[in-house]
Amino acid sequence: MTILEGIRGPRDLKALSEEELGLLAEEIREFLVHAVARTGGHLGPNLGVVELTIALHRVFESPVDRILWDTGHQSYVHKLLTGRQDFSKLRGKGGLSGYPSREESEHDVIENSHASTALGWADGLAKARQVLGEQGHVVAVIGDGALTGGMAWEALNNIAAAKDRPLIIVVNDNERSYAPTIGGLANHLATLRTTDGYEKALAWGKDVLQRTPVIGRTLYESLHGAKKGFKDAFAPQGMFEDLGLKYVGPIDGHDTRAVESALRRAKRFHGPVLVHCLTEKGRGYEPALADEADRFHTVGVMDPLTCEPLAPSNGPSWTSVFGDEIARIGAEREDVVAITAAMLHPVGLTKFAEQFPDRVWDVGIAEQHAAVSAAGLATGGVHPVVAVYATFLNRAFDQLLMDVALHKCGVTFVLDRAGVTGVDGASHNGMWDMSILQVVPGLRIAAPRDADQLRAQLREAVAVDDAPTLLRFPKESVGPAIPAVDRMGGLDVLHRTASGQGSAYDAQVLFVAVGVMAPVCLQAAELLEARGIRCTVVDPRWVKPVDPALPPLGAAHDLVAVVEDNSKAAGVGAAVALALGEAEVDVPVRRFGIPEQFLAHAKRGEVLADIGLTPVEIAGRIGAALAAKEKPEK
Amino acid sequence: MTILEGIRGPRDLKALSEEELGLLAEEIREFLVHAVARTGGHLGPNLGVVELTIALHRVFESPVDRILWDTGHQSYVHKLLTGRQDFSKLRGKGGLSGYPSREESEHDVIENSHASTALGWADGLAKARQVLGEQGHVVAVIGDGALTGGMAWEALNNIAAAKDRPLIIVVNDNERSYAPTIGGLANHLATLRTTDGYEKALAWGKDVLQRTPVIGRTLYESLHGAKKGFKDAFAPQGMFEDLGLKYVGPIDGHDTRAVESALRRAKRFHGPVLVHCLTEKGRGYEPALADEADRFHTVGVMDPLTCEPLAPSNGPSWTSVFGDEIARIGAEREDVVAITAAMLHPVGLTKFAEQFPDRVWDVGIAEQHAAVSAAGLATGGVHPVVAVYATFLNRAFDQLLMDVALHKCGVTFVLDRAGVTGVDGASHNGMWDMSILQVVPGLRIAAPRDADQLRAQLREAVAVDDAPTLLRFPKESVGPAIPAVDRMGGLDVLHRTASGQGSAYDAQVLFVAVGVMAPVCLQAAELLEARGIRCTVVDPRWVKPVDPALPPLGAAHDLVAVVEDNSKAAGVGAAVALALGEAEVDVPVRRFGIPEQFLAHAKRGEVLADIGLTPVEIAGRIGAALAAKEKPEK
Repeated sequence: MTILEGIRGPRDLKALSEEELGLLAEEIREFLVHAVARTGGHLGPNLGVVELTIALHRVFESPVDRILWDTGHQSYVHKLLTGRQDFSKLRGKGGLSGYPSREESEHDVIENSHASTALGWADGLAKARQVLGEQGHVVAVIGDGALTGGMAWEALNNIAAAKDRPLIIVVNDNERSYAPTIGGLANHLATLRTTDGYEKALAWGKDVLQRTPVIGRTLYESLHGAKKGFKDAFAPQGMFEDLGLKYVGPIDGHDTRAVESALRRAKRFHGPVLVHCLTEKGRGYEPALADEADRFHTVGVMDPLTCEPLAPSNGPSWTSVFGDEIARIGAEREDVVAITAAMLHPVGLTKFAEQFPDRVWDVGIAEQHAAVSAAGLATGGVHPVVAVYATFLNRAFDQLLMDVALHKCGVTFVLDRAGVTGVDGASHNGMWDMSILQVVPGLRIAAPRDADQLRAQLREAVAVDDAPTLLRFPKESVGPAIPAVDRMGGLDVLHRTASGQGSAYDAQVLFVAVGVMAPVCLQAAELLEARGIRCTVVDPRWVKPVDPALPPLGAAHDLVAVVEDNSKAAGVGAAVALALGEAEVDVPVRRFGIPEQFLAHAKRGEVLADIGLTPVEIAGRIGAALAAKEKPEK
Repeated sequence: MTILEGIRGPRDLKALSEEELGLLAEEIREFLVHAVARTGGHLGPNLGVVELTIALHRVFESPVDRILWDTGHQSYVHKLLTGRQDFSKLRGKGGLSGYPSREESEHDVIENSHASTALGWADGLAKARQVLGEQGHVVAVIGDGALTGGMAWEALNNIAAAKDRPLIIVVNDNERSYAPTIGGLANHLATLRTTDGYEKALAWGKDVLQRTPVIGRTLYESLHGAKKGFKDAFAPQGMFEDLGLKYVGPIDGHDTRAVESALRRAKRFHGPVLVHCLTEKGRGYEPALADEADRFHTVGVMDPLTCEPLAPSNGPSWTSVFGDEIARIGAEREDVVAITAAMLHPVGLTKFAEQFPDRVWDVGIAEQHAAVSAAGLATGGVHPVVAVYATFLNRAFDQLLMDVALHKCGVTFVLDRAGVTGVDGASHNGMWDMSILQVVPGLRIAAPRDADQLRAQLREAVAVDDAPTLLRFPKESVGPAIPAVDRMGGLDVLHRTASGQGSAYDAQVLFVAVGVMAPVCLQAAELLEARGIRCTVVDPRWVKPVDPALPPLGAAHDLVAVVEDNSKAAGVGAAVALALGEAEVDVPVRRFGIPEQFLAHAKRGEVLADIGLTPVEIAGRIGAALAAKEKPEK
């Protein structure tokens, strides 16, 4: 049995010798590389926190003490040490979640997987303890990248204000978000990293100055007595101490003994304290360390030795289609600029950035700033393209509405990973955007159905200079082209059941196929046709606003079915139903989309089947609805 | 003619002597007190920025240089100096907006009126200038309160990173948001305020130390050469300089010459610079200065001498009904705590805070933190009540979804100023909440119709400990009680047309009356009844989820009319239509709400009339729809 296999819970760590701890760290890295290579998942971040996690669980008593993992993708080691060592179905249906999960363990608290939240959670938990008079420590582990998010600042401001409320912030500083961390804060952390520590300077100051009578002593006292004083001159922990946080660090995050010692100091301190740990993303795994772009942040199924992908490629991704086209547009238009929130490569902006480095900005994990600075850029006369994951746009709703749309700014939002993304679980599905954005005046939304449409609609979007536009597409590989057979107003007609006798077209079901649901609708139509039900399938292209051609077309059918890879509540289906009602068209509408629930992690196809977003289910329900309508009234 | 009347634009300021500038400041304060007393509006903030605004317009060349006002309620002086001196219809229909407005003036840029955005706008504008190679300064004026918002941090982090991109941040530090500013930052600013300035200390250091040979000189150089070094020991501007921002200050913001001098220094600096101005909210107006609670942040129509309100009171406000009840609940339940985002008094938490000071937190202008810390509090075992204005909840959408709802936290959100608020214009209407929140799994939403319902539903809300709940009510005085005549499932039946012959109830129109739209629906029903159309009016009480009793009730009518004081897109109407469709009930639905547009400032009643949310309009459209349905088919 390995040492790791003998760890059934955090208590088992406490008896280990220093040598055994070293071996355990090695075993964990070995385990991670092989386990994650088998299933895919977050590798680099977890390799970086092995010693830190061991130290946390040796110093604190989880779950009485609460250990909070910001973002959560660096919780694999924590899982291994808290009784979860079966990684065989990691992120798969029925397997371990890729993030902390309250269902899995009492040691888990936050499962949101959006960055920068842990400090706010910690503030709330610490306040609850104070109100209830409970004991126990609250420890939040947050990356330097996540500190660039506004929520982290709001929390620091609150935490620092309460001198009597103990709370420990561990900054896991690997100089990276997904990509290297940007901004003034990153520079400040770099300064902290290069200092030799306060103690050494203090000792030197005492020695040198106190040997110089009068002037020296006065100066020493005056400096040392000032609010920040002497300390800052040599160990400029300034920013955090300015706010009122006790600062401990910097600590080598791969030196378990040093980390433990720092955490024990922090634990004894009766107020808010920040422990600054330096770690290396991808630690101990050469291929990760060699990958300067993202240090194997996430990997697919691969050979752990050669790092060759073992899953077959299904052709170009939506991301790469976007990335190629935006680079082409950038070459044609010097006024087109791009913004990413710490994810240049994952959102497809690498090529654009290589070709136009002065026209792209990584704003940090700061979607609010991405949107509001885009409003400023547009007002200043350029056209920004803001590329983010769909689920993270939720953070910028107010800015899209109040800064971009209210000011009629020509900004193009490009949402990658829209719809059901699957294995990353509840918080990574991009299933909210087409619902919450229905209220934004002037916003135009497109859900391209294939690569040609994505390219065409991206060009339509960047041509709009007096209102925001938004494109959304999924994580998957892009499928084959789906040609239109006709055009009605702004609608692409993808299919019409061939007419029987007579010239009049008399279809019963109108499918409104949103983006990648087009193939699903075409297949559902085929199933209905086999039962003698005539169908029309249209792709509205721009789903917001609803095209004026849609209500009259709907009026010519017995039932309208709106199919979208988005929340069924308040989505495109709701918008279509509203448009029909406003036009006094009372054709029944059936909406097919994601029900009002958080979706557990599983493959995208499995999730779609579970929620009935399949041709068979859709055709079945429509057939039943039509049959019920044909029954004679009672 | 006064000096003020002679100012047609910023250029006219440049010729004034120092004495004239002093007189101008006096005239402006006199003007503000009398003008705002006549119409109501923001008074305290504008009295505080008279000299600062004059100095800004003397040093910079608006609109070539862009002056950005954060939040915007302190832009009255700016309006007076940029050709807008007719305040007679301030915030009224057709009159001046209470915020900057691009329609009013080329000198205005940001009109969003949500706090903490100006730095992000400035970053975007400065980047656009850099891309386009344009000249001109970008100056953002932001309050110390607004610096507590996460967006401000995200922007600072980005601004500070670009050493070569000029941008001037003026911190208007009056130690207040609406209420006194909270948090670690406020403490830090207080430290900055008490320093005597870097220059004095530097001069002293040079003198004293350089007179001490060897040790002294080494020390001076070593300190002065360090990144922060000597400077911080005496003028701990540390935090901003740590991030990489040049710091100038603190400056007396009422000394025009000092402010001008600081701004000119900042203007010459070729990089990001922060000018720290100390101002006094309510400056020069005794009644405001005497009001420690909010320094006359906003006032209603009043006598400028006695400050007695001149508009008749219409009885208790919704806010006060909530405030009284939450204080009663607080007395009964020690685990109920409250959170405000810098607006303790306006959201009605004053009484609660007086009685339970250890159970209430002002988190700053930080709605994200309000929500995420509430998730932590709930997980920690208490029940938080988060009280904010409806429009500001937009900032916390992601946190409500991902932190509160995903983790099944018992948190009660209380939205004041929901629906059409009127005079504060587009950005203050609380018209988005019931739309964007439709997608939140497990969330329950109530729109109480009267004071009794507010009290009852608040108690129902705080009793839920495994999911978020939300109450929303308007700004107005609360109207008379509206009794239910019956109950069906969770629905309160407010009215049924008396049956004619026979026992079967055969109404044609089902009104779903959301919250304060109940009286409107009752009047519309009356108008329809006068035309022989039978109506049922129900208040669903909890509008999300849709009550199971609603679809069968809808099926028994010819038309369902949903009336809500919220965006028509994606709102309660959409949810009702979806519920009917899911139940295979195909009764026509008509939705009455706020159309997809930003609403110009005017009184609430005027706005409602403009958008057709009146009994006459609603009854008219329903009557026409029914008449069209009765026509024989062609």
